[in-house]
Amino acid sequence: MAGALEELRRRLAEVSDLSRAAGVLAWDQRVTMPPLGTEARAEQLATLGRIAHERFTDDEVGRLLEAAAPLVESLPYDSDDASLVRVTRRDWEKERRVPAELQEEMTLEAARGHHAWVRARRDSDYASFRPYLEKNLELKRRYVECFEWSDSPYTPLLDDYEPGMLTTDVRDVFAVLRPALTDLVASAPQVDASFLHGEFAPDDQRVFAERLLATLGLEEGSWRLDPTAHPFCTSFSNRDVRLTTHYHPDNLDSVWSSLHEAGHGLYAHGIADSLLRTPLGGAPSLGLNESQSRTWENLVGRSRLFWEHWYPSLQQTFPSLRGVDLDAFVRAVNRAEPGLIRIEADETTYSLHIILRFELEQELLEEKVSLDELPDVWNARMKEFLGVDVPDDGHGVLQDVHWSGGGFGYFPTYALGNVISLQIWGVVRQALPDLDGQLAAGDLGPLSDWLRDNLYSLGRKLTPKETIERLTGSPDIDPAPYLEYLRAKVGAAVS
Amino acid sequence: MAGALEELRRRLAEVSDLSRAAGVLAWDQRVTMPPLGTEARAEQLATLGRIAHERFTDDEVGRLLEAAAPLVESLPYDSDDASLVRVTRRDWEKERRVPAELQEEMTLEAARGHHAWVRARRDSDYASFRPYLEKNLELKRRYVECFEWSDSPYTPLLDDYEPGMLTTDVRDVFAVLRPALTDLVASAPQVDASFLHGEFAPDDQRVFAERLLATLGLEEGSWRLDPTAHPFCTSFSNRDVRLTTHYHPDNLDSVWSSLHEAGHGLYAHGIADSLLRTPLGGAPSLGLNESQSRTWENLVGRSRLFWEHWYPSLQQTFPSLRGVDLDAFVRAVNRAEPGLIRIEADETTYSLHIILRFELEQELLEEKVSLDELPDVWNARMKEFLGVDVPDDGHGVLQDVHWSGGGFGYFPTYALGNVISLQIWGVVRQALPDLDGQLAAGDLGPLSDWLRDNLYSLGRKLTPKETIERLTGSPDIDPAPYLEYLRAKVGAAVS
Repeated sequence: MAGALEELRRRLAEVSDLSRAAGVLAWDQRVTMPPLGTEARAEQLATLGRIAHERFTDDEVGRLLEAAAPLVESLPYDSDDASLVRVTRRDWEKERRVPAELQEEMTLEAARGHHAWVRARRDSDYASFRPYLEKNLELKRRYVECFEWSDSPYTPLLDDYEPGMLTTDVRDVFAVLRPALTDLVASAPQVDASFLHGEFAPDDQRVFAERLLATLGLEEGSWRLDPTAHPFCTSFSNRDVRLTTHYHPDNLDSVWSSLHEAGHGLYAHGIADSLLRTPLGGAPSLGLNESQSRTWENLVGRSRLFWEHWYPSLQQTFPSLRGVDLDAFVRAVNRAEPGLIRIEADETTYSLHIILRFELEQELLEEKVSLDELPDVWNARMKEFLGVDVPDDGHGVLQDVHWSGGGFGYFPTYALGNVISLQIWGVVRQALPDLDGQLAAGDLGPLSDWLRDNLYSLGRKLTPKETIERLTGSPDIDPAPYLEYLRAKVGAAVS
Repeated sequence: MAGALEELRRRLAEVSDLSRAAGVLAWDQRVTMPPLGTEARAEQLATLGRIAHERFTDDEVGRLLEAAAPLVESLPYDSDDASLVRVTRRDWEKERRVPAELQEEMTLEAARGHHAWVRARRDSDYASFRPYLEKNLELKRRYVECFEWSDSPYTPLLDDYEPGMLTTDVRDVFAVLRPALTDLVASAPQVDASFLHGEFAPDDQRVFAERLLATLGLEEGSWRLDPTAHPFCTSFSNRDVRLTTHYHPDNLDSVWSSLHEAGHGLYAHGIADSLLRTPLGGAPSLGLNESQSRTWENLVGRSRLFWEHWYPSLQQTFPSLRGVDLDAFVRAVNRAEPGLIRIEADETTYSLHIILRFELEQELLEEKVSLDELPDVWNARMKEFLGVDVPDDGHGVLQDVHWSGGGFGYFPTYALGNVISLQIWGVVRQALPDLDGQLAAGDLGPLSDWLRDNLYSLGRKLTPKETIERLTGSPDIDPAPYLEYLRAKVGAAVS
């Protein structure tokens, strides 16, 4: 029986290697690949994905899971071996439910949809994108049929990103958030942030970002930061973490985008060595992963304490900031300001963009909103949620990449990340009584170490809810600390 | 039966995708990977290699080859389908002869040997490397036993890099080369090349190299050039070609190293689209591949005509060259000067370094030279061949990476490349009567197109000898044009 566990680990390591290899190819495609390499790369990625899927969903993996089950029965719930068998069984059963043909059709239509979307967004041409959206939605309905659900057909989609979470769970959280955020946005004062726009040499931004990121607790020689069009983070082991950012020559967004990706990177970096090359070597959910990107981007990276240490360096790097005092700078980077574009939204308005999408996704899936009326509904909701007028679909319903590739169910994880980040932050503050002083001194080590030891190192051993409970004492996603944080922030800006 | 060919192509495409994916991982490892990613990367590469090997050597591939054979029988010899079945069968039979355990042991010992060599070379400590060399040699002897050979046990090793070539073929070529090169080196005049050493800003070198490489016929958007410690070229399709070079701040070697790798890159770039994702999508042998890196590095890149066009740009980029006239520059980059290190050797002395290694490899394999006496024999031969005294093993027997990883049989391909490059050059000169004018005008398009259409596009459809015969009319590797070229060069320097 010990042999079964060993053989299971061997097979899973192979699947992990294939997935990590695909990750290298995807990173290369987005960071370094010459543009004409696209076609061959798509074939290479499809082959790696197909082989990884075949090997993981093999009957033999099921037999090995059966054989290993009695062996881990007496082990602690969160031991490596018991977690491996439990989590792998859940993954295996889920992945086996989807017929290979449907999986391949989804992959194909996602690629087609993506191409159509790139053109449609550029030309603000919803009509040309509509048939692709329809096809992807239809495939998602067939995908949903592969699973059982109790509360909403949206739940199987959500489950891909937030294992074990119900649509009703998210609705409950958003029901609290939406009115509170709407009030906050309405009461937010105008804040001068004009100095955040101007000329900021990309090379200076790079040097600053690299200096900053070197202090977060990422071991030297285990990460790199590269420029790319749309920033992301990926990793090929806990000692090969790839951060990316975008240096806009006319603003300083790269500072927070780098911190955001570094938050994801710290998660990947903190995964325990014993979980590498297993299905446990990641974060329990996108929401938990996002909670950490938000922690480093916002809770650390927009805090006054953090900038007490770093602002003089920033001013030295960018002389145009020398006439702007710390208070004005901190107010500016924490301002709330409704806008059209999700990825440019501030902390306060961001979740409203998400709630809008979460509702629309369910309505589209259940055909309560038709694809014909989608742009109008989008625009009306933007007016209702954020008070803004959408000038064209390129700045409206076509702005995001997700739906083009069938990524329904993904959006809520961003807002959940915001909420969870504050729940965990409350625990961190109790655990590290000197945190304020450490932040003000630029000493991010204790924070980074604590998060690694208490969260990142767990990987996917526990479910998202179990992970949150392990940290906070309750499995619930509680929006109160997040709203309290935002209220204090908007209040501070008013005062 | 048509189905058999289709299914064969599908399987081979998958194997090709896996190999190309491994190529991306290897490129990343040498160009961008953070150093601590090494361990995980080795596992990922081992997994991809193992799966590719398993899938290629599968019994089913043999059955498909059998089933496809009658279908291609009536097709022209060099048709895509007939070539695919013929070449794949040869590859398949060869790869099946090596037991998986031996293959894995060779991979493992190659990695161990490489690590030991890095330290041994640094410390000039042959004794510490000797056991690893012994192990790798022993494995190569077992590898040789997997094959039949008529002339020398060295032939199966050579065959990995030069399919179909016999050790005696190489001996015949080298028997002509060696005395002729020795005479040439002895009669070579002293040439002033002091101006090739000095301060050359790496960034300026990069800009110059990128400008130069953009004129060779590589389609825009299908290649990139990156810095690395030990330059190499790899490709992941004919439209995703990765060139690398090294910018030494104190010399201009990057110019020729870039041209050298671009020669390999042009080969990969010129492979016909119809051969992609098949075993035919490469060069027939390392020698033929090397003939093209040498063509672009030397026959083009050291020619007076080429520099008539480019030298003013080079002088503009590097003002220290403004006092050096074109003749002096061309003489310097074509000088012959015996030295200790193969990779620093000039065109004339280079092949002597290779002949020394070719002879020693056979003697080691057949135990005519023992590992105990190897360093002394090396040093004595260096004195005999090149007239130089080896100060320590780091500059002697430990200088090359090849043996550390069991790469016996590889070295001769370098010298064969030199020889073949001149045979093909003779054909090119006849086919392109305006070549001189084109080179002097910086117009490399006709040369590049001709080589693509007549050589690169063939891929591995023909054997090395068949390929040479297709171009020159004879399958023989003939050292005469190469020697004639060198004699003219050394003669020109004398006059």
